[in-house]
Amino acid sequence: MKLLRYGEVGRERPGLIDADGNIRDLSQNIADLSDETLDPAALERLSHVDPSTLPLVHGNPRLGPCVAGTGKFICIGLNYSDHAAETGATVPPEPIIFMKATSAIVGPDDDLLIPRGSEKTDWEVELGVVIGRHAKYVSEDEALDYVAGYCTINDVSERAFQTERSGQWTKGKSCDTFGPIGPWLVTKDEVADPQDLGMWLTVNGEKVQDGSTKTMVYGVKYLVSYLSQFMSLHPGDIISTGTPPGVGMGMKPPRYLKAGDVVELGIEGLGNQRQNVKADA
Amino acid sequence: MKLLRYGEVGRERPGLIDADGNIRDLSQNIADLSDETLDPAALERLSHVDPSTLPLVHGNPRLGPCVAGTGKFICIGLNYSDHAAETGATVPPEPIIFMKATSAIVGPDDDLLIPRGSEKTDWEVELGVVIGRHAKYVSEDEALDYVAGYCTINDVSERAFQTERSGQWTKGKSCDTFGPIGPWLVTKDEVADPQDLGMWLTVNGEKVQDGSTKTMVYGVKYLVSYLSQFMSLHPGDIISTGTPPGVGMGMKPPRYLKAGDVVELGIEGLGNQRQNVKADA
Repeated sequence: MKLLRYGEVGRERPGLIDADGNIRDLSQNIADLSDETLDPAALERLSHVDPSTLPLVHGNPRLGPCVAGTGKFICIGLNYSDHAAETGATVPPEPIIFMKATSAIVGPDDDLLIPRGSEKTDWEVELGVVIGRHAKYVSEDEALDYVAGYCTINDVSERAFQTERSGQWTKGKSCDTFGPIGPWLVTKDEVADPQDLGMWLTVNGEKVQDGSTKTMVYGVKYLVSYLSQFMSLHPGDIISTGTPPGVGMGMKPPRYLKAGDVVELGIEGLGNQRQNVKADA
Repeated sequence: MKLLRYGEVGRERPGLIDADGNIRDLSQNIADLSDETLDPAALERLSHVDPSTLPLVHGNPRLGPCVAGTGKFICIGLNYSDHAAETGATVPPEPIIFMKATSAIVGPDDDLLIPRGSEKTDWEVELGVVIGRHAKYVSEDEALDYVAGYCTINDVSERAFQTERSGQWTKGKSCDTFGPIGPWLVTKDEVADPQDLGMWLTVNGEKVQDGSTKTMVYGVKYLVSYLSQFMSLHPGDIISTGTPPGVGMGMKPPRYLKAGDVVELGIEGLGNQRQNVKADA
């Protein structure tokens, strides 16, 4: 299933995409795409609903973040060997973990706001993994039992805030609108191999990232298992698994976003995002 | 007011401490200590309720975290000059920000669980600042208008996970039970000067931390204003403002927690915590 949340900010309703690409409303079936609704068993039951019996949503509503109630937005740093190289770093001996503020989460096509004082706002297309069940000390073999599905993420990053303003990356990763998620939560049965998905990002129509999850250093199963050794993962938690080459920071000279730019990105089978870049008020 | 949440895990009810030190139930007055209840104006209205008219809570219930619905648990690193010195670091030119997982939050007297594989679990008594209103781009002068109050926090830290397991501190800060909060959310009207509060921590009765928020490098007003330049702060967000000297990592030789230890800590006017240290199952 391709699950989504549509409607005004803070009042989104759950839905799904039917075979014709239309949105069907799921409000009568589930409260939201959060908590126990994300349990793989609950999603399996939901998959038995015939989409043609669900109310058709007319028009072209705004899409919200495809998951609600996210407690943790965990990111993996330098998880593509060629991206590590372009930033002048080496692949770490263990995954690098950092947190993005959950208050950065927005819909896939919401405006991307450049924070006051920013001169180095950058892009990163990433495969997102959405946790469906409480996971702690789980093995790599069983890791996917705890996953609800996957989504497209833009891990927007302010490089000066991230690396020039005193230690730790959170500062440059957590600005409002820096976490577009969606358009869809694609359940894992529709993703044959999360380590073989094409991914791309354009700025004003020019392709700047063009990679594949094939070149991910630490894969999805490993990451879920690894993280669960340090902390409980809960339904709605999101793991953003790192970006392939082609970020602005790696260009010579570096290139950053400015008001008026348009960023588009997508991952094979998981849908596309489009953000208009504006200065924050 | 000294506000609190009491009852079983996940089913806590709001309450307050009356003049005699008893718990009075607030369930009929507020839904929980979260969201708009934390707005300073709402807290001011709540302060007009006569505690003697509220139901007396009998017995000695468990205390939960003193705030609910925390979206961000933001920590400030190396924010006491003498603590920075004991860890071999220098005071940073700007505050160091990192995130603790909100899933680490527990009540003030809940068990402290040493994660599997941990050999360097350490303590840190810290002044917690609880946000009461949405704050973005706020000045230092107006910063306290956005604060609901203060609480005691133990920023429990696994030093090997934090510093020896590949970049970024989050990994050693986010383990389950590593964020005891409370016992009370003390509203700001009861704290004359947040930069003049004694603070202490003992392990098995031996005092290891004995400091004051006087020696904090970046104070509460500055931190609220500073953080709001990078991201929106929301009601229930917590800022843990750093620890004074006396952590286990700074001892010669270093000393870490083991199952059977008892950690007690407190901050002047904000109440005490007591944790039994156990191995995680």
